[in-house]
Amino acid sequence: MQKSAIRISPFVVERLTRYLIFMQLGGQRGKEWISSDTIAKAMGLTSSTVRQDISHLPTPCGISKKGYDVKRLAAALTDVLGIETVKQAVIVGAGNFGKALFLHEEFLEQGLRIAALFDNDPGLIGIMVGGARIRDVAELDGYAEKNGVDIGIIAVPAEAAQHVADQLVAAGVKGILNLSTCDVRPTGGVPVVHSRLILDILNLSFKMKYNQVNGKTFAVT
Amino acid sequence: MQKSAIRISPFVVERLTRYLIFMQLGGQRGKEWISSDTIAKAMGLTSSTVRQDISHLPTPCGISKKGYDVKRLAAALTDVLGIETVKQAVIVGAGNFGKALFLHEEFLEQGLRIAALFDNDPGLIGIMVGGARIRDVAELDGYAEKNGVDIGIIAVPAEAAQHVADQLVAAGVKGILNLSTCDVRPTGGVPVVHSRLILDILNLSFKMKYNQVNGKTFAVT
Repeated sequence: MQKSAIRISPFVVERLTRYLIFMQLGGQRGKEWISSDTIAKAMGLTSSTVRQDISHLPTPCGISKKGYDVKRLAAALTDVLGIETVKQAVIVGAGNFGKALFLHEEFLEQGLRIAALFDNDPGLIGIMVGGARIRDVAELDGYAEKNGVDIGIIAVPAEAAQHVADQLVAAGVKGILNLSTCDVRPTGGVPVVHSRLILDILNLSFKMKYNQVNGKTFAVT
Repeated sequence: MQKSAIRISPFVVERLTRYLIFMQLGGQRGKEWISSDTIAKAMGLTSSTVRQDISHLPTPCGISKKGYDVKRLAAALTDVLGIETVKQAVIVGAGNFGKALFLHEEFLEQGLRIAALFDNDPGLIGIMVGGARIRDVAELDGYAEKNGVDIGIIAVPAEAAQHVADQLVAAGVKGILNLSTCDVRPTGGVPVVHSRLILDILNLSFKMKYNQVNGKTFAVT
């Protein structure tokens, strides 16, 4: 196996995820080729950033003057982002948000099968959500082992988030998506991504206050 | 009014939003003072980054050796992020995700009152969600004007997102939170923030593939 060390910053990774979504939509619309200019314009980036980011991918996906092959680029991004195989996920927290995520259709498109929903509230355990029973979080260990659960999704209130993260790690998950507003600490070498829905709202508020339309640096006076 | 031009990059703004959430949680736990070290450790940052970011705020919030006054820092962040007054928001898209967001409790804490839920599906219009009736998107214009709606939240499938963005701008919203996976283009000078729930999943997948625990630059081989 050829080894070529490529250094990718988290900002590049974040842009690669956006390119993939864009390729998936482009592919659905039947487009076969797409230019770095088109991608750049849709994302508010420069085309040289787009070209540089995509040059990090191990497979070449572009042809001069034609642009990028949409299917090939989508496949290369899928590969580098590690979503070529479907992962099993569980959600802990069966409140409104947890239930909605459990029913959300778009996860499977991104290689995530949400297999079960857990809570510790006796008033919720046993209730049916979209054909599945809300399970007792006490069953988490056995369930995760038996079903090869890869990812744990935290959808509990902030004050319970770290405890749930620890429970998920103990149950053997290999990655955590934290949807609570509390930054949980990774334990046992398990990667954590903090979802930013609430932060996005604050970010929008800031942009509205200073009427900031593009993502450029700007002056607060 | 004193004018002091401070340049703040989008990355600083993103961190300021995280500090605010952290202060709110700290405040709930009764903490009065917090050090840049504590903040840095919880967020995987260096304390000099934290100090530099907070030094952008117009109000001084720290005392040497004591750290930052939690309440004062939260107030300064609330002010700079523009959430000191409650904004009225509407959601367009009454699918599972839109309904869940409508019922989500945490928005109001961040100054966002979700006033109404719209859809264009006759099978959904009129159905009650948490005490409110799903409204016809055809009523959006009149509703927004009458109720002083500030923010439009897009929770429709990707292919309908740009059209809904245009409808929201036409109805007079001053900011858009886009929860679809399609990057919508800002029109008429209205700021847009793209939510990254799906991107977060891809990001986690990438981190799991390369076993990346912290946010540092790393090598793909």
